[in-house]
Amino acid sequence: MFSYHHQLRVRYGDTDQMGFVYYGNYPYYYEQARAEAIRSLGITYKQLEESGSMMPIARMNIKYIQPALYDDLLTIQATVPELPGRIMIFQYKIFNEKGVLINEGENHLLFMDAKTRKIHSAPALLIEKLKPYFG
Amino acid sequence: MFSYHHQLRVRYGDTDQMGFVYYGNYPYYYEQARAEAIRSLGITYKQLEESGSMMPIARMNIKYIQPALYDDLLTIQATVPELPGRIMIFQYKIFNEKGVLINEGENHLLFMDAKTRKIHSAPALLIEKLKPYFG
Amino acid sequence: MFSYHHQLRVRYGDTDQMGFVYYGNYPYYYEQARAEAIRSLGITYKQLEESGSMMPIARMNIKYIQPALYDDLLTIQATVPELPGRIMIFQYKIFNEKGVLINEGENHLLFMDAKTRKIHSAPALLIEKLKPYFG
Amino acid sequence: MFSYHHQLRVRYGDTDQMGFVYYGNYPYYYEQARAEAIRSLGITYKQLEESGSMMPIARMNIKYIQPALYDDLLTIQATVPELPGRIMIFQYKIFNEKGVLINEGENHLLFMDAKTRKIHSAPALLIEKLKPYFG
Repeated sequence: MFSYHHQLRVRYGDTDQMGFVYYGNYPYYYEQARAEAIRSLGITYKQLEESGSMMPIARMNIKYIQPALYDDLLTIQATVPELPGRIMIFQYKIFNEKGVLINEGENHLLFMDAKTRKIHSAPALLIEKLKPYFG
Repeated sequence: MFSYHHQLRVRYGDTDQMGFVYYGNYPYYYEQARAEAIRSLGITYKQLEESGSMMPIARMNIKYIQPALYDDLLTIQATVPELPGRIMIFQYKIFNEKGVLINEGENHLLFMDAKTRKIHSAPALLIEKLKPYFG
Repeated sequence: MFSYHHQLRVRYGDTDQMGFVYYGNYPYYYEQARAEAIRSLGITYKQLEESGSMMPIARMNIKYIQPALYDDLLTIQATVPELPGRIMIFQYKIFNEKGVLINEGENHLLFMDAKTRKIHSAPALLIEKLKPYFG
Repeated sequence: MFSYHHQLRVRYGDTDQMGFVYYGNYPYYYEQARAEAIRSLGITYKQLEESGSMMPIARMNIKYIQPALYDDLLTIQATVPELPGRIMIFQYKIFNEKGVLINEGENHLLFMDAKTRKIHSAPALLIEKLKPYFG
């Protein structure tokens, strides 16, 4: 298992007139946590893409437990529960400043050749970085 | 069962550098289809909110089947599969101009008193409009 | 002068906790009006891009006069005040359902070769479609 | 003059199919820089709002000089050039990691009573914090 914590601040533009973070902003938060999780491994999603592998999303599940509010400093735990094969799973837990779990989600990502747009298995570069966490 | 079809055009700002609609835009598309589905019943989400009921999202599931592209005219079928009680379920199917199913999703919505912020059952106004479809 | 009116509906996700449309959504509204204005000429921005010309934005000015609200049906007048050379100007006026002018803006767009990423003059295809309006 | 530097990372969802940050994302970047600039004064925009003063935007000007790219770590300099009266001006300069100025902008903000929705002058709390910079 590989896990990483990322913090981000809720923007005013992320709220809606209910006074909560609009439900469509969580995928963006997940992306930020995912990108920082990968960066913490010593590579970047940008490098993966430049080396020829795009990672389109195949699935997303979100459970909205409590609202996030403007200016909240959220902590997002992004977890890779298993070594990716043709699918890479990311699981997320979002906590507010009081440590309350307010949101849970999951993404399935694929690996797509940037030129041929065909789906392939996880690139060696990524597997190499993740392997030490799945001993 | 109540079902409604809504069409929308993909904006340039909805795409990302992969050349596809960014995965975080689908919740916005769902919201548009949901709002128009409710409008077709002869009420509006705005009226529901003004009458004291906000509808926060409790869950979302999305299956990304094929990418949506810039300027695609998408058709979103929004379905209410059962008469809402404490939860209102919306299911979505998105088709591109060729009639290909490219995305499927589901939302669970709650009913929240705008003042007390407490959860309650579906307001009578909404039930009355939906009932003829669940006879 | 070439002018076109486009209508759009304010989404819930476009509002913020002030209860107004967040100021960052207007560029998206302008884009929608711009794209439909070009479509009304018998070409699409997508075709322009496929024929090799991207149109990055060089400048934007916005005057926020009155707030737009959730579910408002806005009318956006997009105007091309002069035949484009190296710069294409779009001017926008947004009216609410009561016909009140609530927002004014302007964009300067450039023409960029999609491959070389060099700036060039307006493509012949676009000029040909616009010329009849600037006699 | 009061000035503050804020750093942020470009998200994948902020790019468009041109491969650049979509022009509609800059107002969000400005907001983040503005909020952090105010926080550095020892108050927050959230506190200002809770004390009864909302700050709607009246004007925005943006000059897009060079594109921002995915994963760029941008530095945004937010400057308050004069002590606010009925209008608060924020000026922004965005630099990429190479130190190149890629974007310049300006906002005029108003002060609006959260209850009456009437425009008033800058609240004493904000003036008090800013005054030392305008000696």
